[in-house]
Amino acid sequence: MSVSKTKEKTFVSTLVKNSYGKSLVRLTKIKRDGKHPEWKEITVEIVLTGPEFAGCYYDGDNSKVVATDSMKNTVYVEGAKHPLNSIEEFGLTLAKHFLEKYSHVAEVNLKLVEELWAQIPINGGLHPTSFVKGGEDKRVTQITKTRMATKVESGIDNLIVAKITNSGFAGFIRDEYTTLKETHDRIFGTKVEARWTYKNESCDFNSGYATARNTMLETFANHHSLSAQQTMYAMGDAVLEAVPGIEEISFVMPNLHRIPFDLINFGLENRNEIFIATSEPHGTIQGTIARKK
Amino acid sequence: MSVSKTKEKTFVSTLVKNSYGKSLVRLTKIKRDGKHPEWKEITVEIVLTGPEFAGCYYDGDNSKVVATDSMKNTVYVEGAKHPLNSIEEFGLTLAKHFLEKYSHVAEVNLKLVEELWAQIPINGGLHPTSFVKGGEDKRVTQITKTRMATKVESGIDNLIVAKITNSGFAGFIRDEYTTLKETHDRIFGTKVEARWTYKNESCDFNSGYATARNTMLETFANHHSLSAQQTMYAMGDAVLEAVPGIEEISFVMPNLHRIPFDLINFGLENRNEIFIATSEPHGTIQGTIARKK
Amino acid sequence: MSVSKTKEKTFVSTLVKNSYGKSLVRLTKIKRDGKHPEWKEITVEIVLTGPEFAGCYYDGDNSKVVATDSMKNTVYVEGAKHPLNSIEEFGLTLAKHFLEKYSHVAEVNLKLVEELWAQIPINGGLHPTSFVKGGEDKRVTQITKTRMATKVESGIDNLIVAKITNSGFAGFIRDEYTTLKETHDRIFGTKVEARWTYKNESCDFNSGYATARNTMLETFANHHSLSAQQTMYAMGDAVLEAVPGIEEISFVMPNLHRIPFDLINFGLENRNEIFIATSEPHGTIQGTIARKK
Amino acid sequence: MSVSKTKEKTFVSTLVKNSYGKSLVRLTKIKRDGKHPEWKEITVEIVLTGPEFAGCYYDGDNSKVVATDSMKNTVYVEGAKHPLNSIEEFGLTLAKHFLEKYSHVAEVNLKLVEELWAQIPINGGLHPTSFVKGGEDKRVTQITKTRMATKVESGIDNLIVAKITNSGFAGFIRDEYTTLKETHDRIFGTKVEARWTYKNESCDFNSGYATARNTMLETFANHHSLSAQQTMYAMGDAVLEAVPGIEEISFVMPNLHRIPFDLINFGLENRNEIFIATSEPHGTIQGTIARKK
Repeated sequence: MSVSKTKEKTFVSTLVKNSYGKSLVRLTKIKRDGKHPEWKEITVEIVLTGPEFAGCYYDGDNSKVVATDSMKNTVYVEGAKHPLNSIEEFGLTLAKHFLEKYSHVAEVNLKLVEELWAQIPINGGLHPTSFVKGGEDKRVTQITKTRMATKVESGIDNLIVAKITNSGFAGFIRDEYTTLKETHDRIFGTKVEARWTYKNESCDFNSGYATARNTMLETFANHHSLSAQQTMYAMGDAVLEAVPGIEEISFVMPNLHRIPFDLINFGLENRNEIFIATSEPHGTIQGTIARKK
Repeated sequence: MSVSKTKEKTFVSTLVKNSYGKSLVRLTKIKRDGKHPEWKEITVEIVLTGPEFAGCYYDGDNSKVVATDSMKNTVYVEGAKHPLNSIEEFGLTLAKHFLEKYSHVAEVNLKLVEELWAQIPINGGLHPTSFVKGGEDKRVTQITKTRMATKVESGIDNLIVAKITNSGFAGFIRDEYTTLKETHDRIFGTKVEARWTYKNESCDFNSGYATARNTMLETFANHHSLSAQQTMYAMGDAVLEAVPGIEEISFVMPNLHRIPFDLINFGLENRNEIFIATSEPHGTIQGTIARKK
Repeated sequence: MSVSKTKEKTFVSTLVKNSYGKSLVRLTKIKRDGKHPEWKEITVEIVLTGPEFAGCYYDGDNSKVVATDSMKNTVYVEGAKHPLNSIEEFGLTLAKHFLEKYSHVAEVNLKLVEELWAQIPINGGLHPTSFVKGGEDKRVTQITKTRMATKVESGIDNLIVAKITNSGFAGFIRDEYTTLKETHDRIFGTKVEARWTYKNESCDFNSGYATARNTMLETFANHHSLSAQQTMYAMGDAVLEAVPGIEEISFVMPNLHRIPFDLINFGLENRNEIFIATSEPHGTIQGTIARKK
Repeated sequence: MSVSKTKEKTFVSTLVKNSYGKSLVRLTKIKRDGKHPEWKEITVEIVLTGPEFAGCYYDGDNSKVVATDSMKNTVYVEGAKHPLNSIEEFGLTLAKHFLEKYSHVAEVNLKLVEELWAQIPINGGLHPTSFVKGGEDKRVTQITKTRMATKVESGIDNLIVAKITNSGFAGFIRDEYTTLKETHDRIFGTKVEARWTYKNESCDFNSGYATARNTMLETFANHHSLSAQQTMYAMGDAVLEAVPGIEEISFVMPNLHRIPFDLINFGLENRNEIFIATSEPHGTIQGTIARKK
């Protein structure tokens, strides 16, 4: 996407890519249309791309620039109009809005992150209007929309899990750089970051998310793990089996190491009970798993 | 605690306080004595104080210094021996250890922070050996022990809550510095940091913690709030009523503001649904509440 | 400071301490009165205390409450009027303002943190109106003012330093918990947090800060260190000698450990060159050093 | 890169991408070969890719797996042998090592981040063996090496700058979503993240870095800015002009907003001196600038 410019003589270079937008737009919406009010906490990032923005870079010509402050206003105004049943549906509406409203925008990239909250438990029930922050994981969607195509990539960040049996790591390469011992019974902890691609815009995003999250947790819990890689693949394969609307899933899974503390030096026996939790350095496993064609 | 020193002539000053220790000692313990293995994740901080450490400051005389690396080892070794039923009991054992082992230590200060984890839900039950990180709040205890007295101050950090009705803020001082509007229906969000003092070392720390946490959540949910201060006091009073072993409770509660976005400018009606979430600046409310004598 | 209340019957407790205020008020001021414009970046925290605030806690009576939003406005309005030559002078003015304006305020606590910026170097000189963020350390002052007394405690946060010779750690206690080896040539790294108390409000705060910072750096650099404690004491003693207006200085100095990586296992010689940088766990040294009377 | 597997029947999916490695390997090296010892602080991330790793994902077959712990050892061992004159040269050596040592590795991705430290100033000179953490920016390189090609992409993270004159933002689109006022005299602050691609492996990386950094700072300082985009492009064009070995440069530049505080409400005049510093939401500008062919 090379673009024309007016002051060509003074520059040695060409702008080959551009994009700009607004980050950390934090929207809280109380939905008052149901029996009980619901609340939604979403952080939105908007990025716009298009060749006509190049004049701003070359010449400071802002005549095509949608101010990022206006993008921020748009999130709140459109958020007021939209039912906000899922971050995917709201994101698709926002992306469509920017393409329709501004004919010179070629591509819209959005990221929406939703915080987990739960109703406060009270007298064996749930309080209708009071909430406590739930788990540390977040629901995420990233939407890419051009005038030709739409991509919805959703997922989870920061889903922290650990298993204390059925995990080993042995049989790896031993050479002069190797000091790690083999183990057939270790703690395996990780922080799952997952992204999956939906087949199209009419998938049921809320049930897709709920099923994918449960499936990942159950597979992690039940898997007999010979390596973090094997468990990751099993999790991805299980999600694809459980959610027909998902075509492909990718993971980034850092290893949250727990290193056995050697009690022999202190006159005690090692019984696989005492571990040093450590965060640096750490292994990181990545992979992309696609439905078989 | 002014202390003697040997090279008095060369210094213009006196050491009036000293302490040192080890921070971020991260212990994971798998308890294998019950029906199912349990797992505990605790971060320990140890601080030792005593006049005999002064020689190290004045002269670099390390003969009285317990290396902080040895303190770290102690956490793992004692952690292997101790049942670890509560962070308070383990902390009291550690504090006693340092005072008994090293006769020149005058005071031990410990902070133990426990992460929340939950068993992974599976087929309507709970997986016995796989865990997911629970809420974002942490259980905390701070123990101060000398040869004369012991103080156990326990609590919760980072308990994030919000209520969307029954909260207002009105009737405050209006003067030339005031631009805030009164409101009788606002979102009230906060991140509770609580510390309570137990009467003595034989309290039931686990039930004290569970009851205090539930009581704070329920009171926050049910309170008709005229100010953050009033809700905070009500929470503290309710904890003191619910847990006889607690003598005093202190709170630090930042206000997690949600500011109404004005839709009038955009041709829409304000219906108390759309808010800007913001983290700076923020109000902070503090207080200490004691049982009436 | 126990306080009366109106609904005594319904409560089991008494409010024994209260305070509230505004945090993270971020002020940028461009001073346009000199030859070149100057710029200041300050984050302010304000806390007010007084027995008359208790009604807000007990009854939700906000009639004595200065809204924290008004406190925020005050920082900007008073910041416009004040020359802002030092954070200490501005803080003292703010503290005086709150006590004079609101007769029921008993005590004002302020914390002001100033970011370091430097003019951008250009053609061997300095650009008059463009700036680059300087070192990672921050200048800090904490002011406590009642109707009777004023305390100005200033300092530095996050001054990160390291020395690669003239530092050892040996001769410490060896017992069954000790595995650390003695060393007479180690890397000593730390992140200095210092707070010093000025004799009175008419000290030269800017020169006090500059001299204290330089003195700490020079002493750290030149000291032959037998322990972190000894170097810390030497730094404090040197500051008290260099700045007559400072009465007392306190430090918190975490040890930024660099652990030798053992190359012997890999067929190489250990030449004290290769280290693992690690941030957990870490030692922490603290002390308070006062001018001899 | 679709890969074969052995238990095909049990899976609904195929692994289409894989990679794994070690993150946060923190190396400190003291170079003792010059007149004065030098010190280097580098954090390394290693990622390996190759079709033969697929067996580990499908079957838990670890026979081709280089343990990430061994990768960590490799950084320290190779770091001991290498002169470490630049992170680029060390990274290229590491990448070559992994490809040569393990014939089944198809691609190595490395990221090396170097912290800025400066010698402590002392008596008008510089202390030879004591250091203070310098500016907040970090030097970075990302190296991608296969058996066919090598890419060296270097840059800077977190270079925080601000200019207080010669910056405006006007003439942008005004529609029903626009509330931002035009300004011809604003503060323009940003945190530069830059990445540039070197022509080949024999460029002078240290002088490339130093010249690029100075050129970005000078251009930012001197530019008359009609928009953040325009200044970013000018910075990139200037770097390409100043460093012939750089082919292309990309930027991510968040806007560190400073919003005028309106003093009119408080009986004062607005003189463009008092600003609210805010970090959310914020604009973000991106672009890639290539040398004209």
